[in-house]
Amino acid sequence: MSVKNSNEIILQNRVLVDVTINPMSRKHYIELDPPSLLNNHADVDRLMAALIDRYHNLKVPLDLMNKVGEVLRQAAWRVTVTVADFGGNWQMIDIEPGDKTERHFGLAVDLGTTTVVGYLVDLTSGKILGSAAEYNEQVRYGEDILTRIYLAGTPEGRKQLQDAVVNTLNNIINRLVREFKIKNLEISAVTVGANTTMVHLLLGLDPSRICMEPYIPVVNLPGCVNASEPGLAVNPKAPLYCLPGVGSYVGGDITGGILASGMYQKPELAVFIDIGTNGEMVLGNSEWLAACAGAAGPALEGGVAHDGMRAEPGAVYQVRIDAETGKVVYRTIGGQKAAGICGSGLIDCLAELLLAGIIDRAGKFRDTEKEFVVVPASESATGKDITFTQTDIDNIMRTKSAVNTALEVLLESVGCQLADIETFYAAGAFGQYLDLESAITIGLYPDLPRERMIRLGNSSGEGARLVLISDDSRREAEKIARSITYFELNASEVFMNKFVGSKFLPHTNLDYYPTVKEKMLRRGLLRD
Amino acid sequence: MSVKNSNEIILQNRVLVDVTINPMSRKHYIELDPPSLLNNHADVDRLMAALIDRYHNLKVPLDLMNKVGEVLRQAAWRVTVTVADFGGNWQMIDIEPGDKTERHFGLAVDLGTTTVVGYLVDLTSGKILGSAAEYNEQVRYGEDILTRIYLAGTPEGRKQLQDAVVNTLNNIINRLVREFKIKNLEISAVTVGANTTMVHLLLGLDPSRICMEPYIPVVNLPGCVNASEPGLAVNPKAPLYCLPGVGSYVGGDITGGILASGMYQKPELAVFIDIGTNGEMVLGNSEWLAACAGAAGPALEGGVAHDGMRAEPGAVYQVRIDAETGKVVYRTIGGQKAAGICGSGLIDCLAELLLAGIIDRAGKFRDTEKEFVVVPASESATGKDITFTQTDIDNIMRTKSAVNTALEVLLESVGCQLADIETFYAAGAFGQYLDLESAITIGLYPDLPRERMIRLGNSSGEGARLVLISDDSRREAEKIARSITYFELNASEVFMNKFVGSKFLPHTNLDYYPTVKEKMLRRGLLRD
Repeated sequence: MSVKNSNEIILQNRVLVDVTINPMSRKHYIELDPPSLLNNHADVDRLMAALIDRYHNLKVPLDLMNKVGEVLRQAAWRVTVTVADFGGNWQMIDIEPGDKTERHFGLAVDLGTTTVVGYLVDLTSGKILGSAAEYNEQVRYGEDILTRIYLAGTPEGRKQLQDAVVNTLNNIINRLVREFKIKNLEISAVTVGANTTMVHLLLGLDPSRICMEPYIPVVNLPGCVNASEPGLAVNPKAPLYCLPGVGSYVGGDITGGILASGMYQKPELAVFIDIGTNGEMVLGNSEWLAACAGAAGPALEGGVAHDGMRAEPGAVYQVRIDAETGKVVYRTIGGQKAAGICGSGLIDCLAELLLAGIIDRAGKFRDTEKEFVVVPASESATGKDITFTQTDIDNIMRTKSAVNTALEVLLESVGCQLADIETFYAAGAFGQYLDLESAITIGLYPDLPRERMIRLGNSSGEGARLVLISDDSRREAEKIARSITYFELNASEVFMNKFVGSKFLPHTNLDYYPTVKEKMLRRGLLRD
Repeated sequence: MSVKNSNEIILQNRVLVDVTINPMSRKHYIELDPPSLLNNHADVDRLMAALIDRYHNLKVPLDLMNKVGEVLRQAAWRVTVTVADFGGNWQMIDIEPGDKTERHFGLAVDLGTTTVVGYLVDLTSGKILGSAAEYNEQVRYGEDILTRIYLAGTPEGRKQLQDAVVNTLNNIINRLVREFKIKNLEISAVTVGANTTMVHLLLGLDPSRICMEPYIPVVNLPGCVNASEPGLAVNPKAPLYCLPGVGSYVGGDITGGILASGMYQKPELAVFIDIGTNGEMVLGNSEWLAACAGAAGPALEGGVAHDGMRAEPGAVYQVRIDAETGKVVYRTIGGQKAAGICGSGLIDCLAELLLAGIIDRAGKFRDTEKEFVVVPASESATGKDITFTQTDIDNIMRTKSAVNTALEVLLESVGCQLADIETFYAAGAFGQYLDLESAITIGLYPDLPRERMIRLGNSSGEGARLVLISDDSRREAEKIARSITYFELNASEVFMNKFVGSKFLPHTNLDYYPTVKEKMLRRGLLRD
């Protein structure tokens, strides 16, 4: 159990976190003396006696007790016992004949509002064997989270939404089980990184009060439940552990991200940003952590843009505009004919239009046009121009202003400045595929030395993997969740003032963006 | 919680055990601050924070979490929380609006092969509010325990027997609930004193190996399960705790009896005897405990005697024979016409026949008759003579010899003598109603000073009550069960030799029975 394991999901070559493998479920091979008249302990008591030194107060569920007697005799008193940690209370969850300690599997899940990713983890090494992703079937009942919260206000609606996400998870589980030739029963622990609403919907909890002031969830630290309670297709007695959340708008996915980044272990100031439908931001170090959240807006998800679309095949994800000729070079996912523009393409458009001098720092077209043709009708899959409009610009600028302002307010609240930030962590799929320079050019990200900016990829899933394989990480996650101070930005007047003030590209105060300022100067877009 | 509580069920005026009330389930009235933007803990976390000092690691079951939010708001943040001890792991099991701490109930059960008794206990005082008894519905599937063990060899048979005993318990619960005007949900803990087979059948465990060498139960210390698992009609999350057993033939009923007697606390040697269909005997003191068991035989239950019957209305329970006139005086239960003779009546018959000189010390009729008319046909309910036969005598003598021999072998095994016994505890209904002098006269009980002989009554039920109201008692019960050394008598050659040697009334060596010897001398039944 002293194998060391470092970040798996995070794609960078850097090791951000190093943990010792002490998984949530454990397997022990045990050889017992057979009973006799002079050694007549009961079956269950005999087995427990072999584990008492390791697990004080280990509980055997009633419906496994008969199996104990059967397997012990079938296997000539040589068995493998699986035990699992339910928040400090250990339970036996399976007994198998012979030595099965090498077949030891767990599932780490990033449960998103739109997409669900499952990682099958080998609990002996802590390594990921493989992953599978599915759209969250809850989307059928509503793309946005508010619709789902509303539906979940009745027990029937809650049940529908729970069944949908459990079905999604079981599809993922069954795909992984088939691919890696294991049995569903061999998955002996499940951990989940999800926002607070998704945790409620998975567990069948009423999320109604999440979106009503004062925004109170049923629970932030649900601890472990049995996987059979929501109905996951794994060992029914396996612990299902949802990463603890901070509040209605900062959930376990963010706790998991902080955990995966390792920022809570370092004395230097760092900021963690996860931009999706909602945006969450955490500022802090090993001493303290402060968080805020807000509706980042679907502007960046492609949903509301004139020709926006999800990051699917045919989506324009990269755009470059030649400042001299005005010629556009773009790339699509899968190299297919362009059908629309996804989030990273939209950010590129805005940055490139600014650097090409086509729009000004207020985000307005310098000439009279009201839109920019990214892909002409002749090249598009739709047969129509794919354009980037003034409304698109305004929407994205609102989002970048919200993110930027949130960071400034958070910094100010704790008496720090942009320059104090040692490391900038960008989480999530959007953070992964976004062009870093474009994000800085439009002022969405701060203008920091690039080597101090780290993309975390699926840090919610990585957080889930860490708590699956390490009880230290589980304790850390709970400590993180309890210690984060949440700032309610919408209630802050400072926020509104700054929000209005930051509605320029990249920022009202260009000195905050030295590399962007230099680029613009070089291109003659600014007076000295 | 510092109320002191002493023996309730034990009918003697003596206090054998004194315990401090720390029941298995507890109620706490809590007043919480309502949430606000600046105090935005989640509902469940807020409630747990109020209990964290008392209960480290308190778990809230998933299906109570929604109820937490509802009741908190409905009751303006003033609620009563019920928590219960699952072997050191505390769980919340209910939440009620307002202060409900005074309505706090538990059920202690003596679950016998034939009869089941439930005691409704007020967990604030530890006192018994009332009791109800029913025949064990399993009797339908077989009077004797071996038939039931055989039936329970299949999952279907196990289910039938479990359903039968659960139905019996639920009838008892429903009677008590109606009588005392409480709700089933208000019973928040259940404890059971039962032999090992009955515990298996209640929990749905396979008892097959209990009666096959080397006599291994599935479990001796099952700990707590949820009352809903077998299906008891109480709070479904209430802990159901079966008193721990020692082995296949010394069960939790005996552990409970030892606990209720208090003999495990005293330095003086004591013996505990429970005679029913099976007989169990425990010898020891605060330093050590040794036990043995055997089929006492249904001889004493009235089942096999020529005119034997259960201790029901119409049963002859007391018999006196005038040594001069040979005239018989008898009493029946309920004063009804005699229908047969129950266990205590049979013991009386044997003792009185000996003291009247009608049978000799070998248990043989001195004259040529082969039976003794206890109730003439003219007085009986059946219209026939109710008789006590030579076969009845032989059967009872076999039982008394087995009990007597067991005690001698146990004493010899630990290097003690009859005279070393400071206290003799007689448990169970049989021990309660049996005439003490008759039991000594026939040599079933040892001839000790009478003030050192204590009838315990339903000590299995009393043991269940003690573990229900006191966690110290629970720990003691487990310590008792683990520390008892079990002697397998049937495997002992010494036993067989002594068994044969003790087949006289009251014993081969009359010096062990000084008071009986004196009586017989007085009546001229012995030569000096």
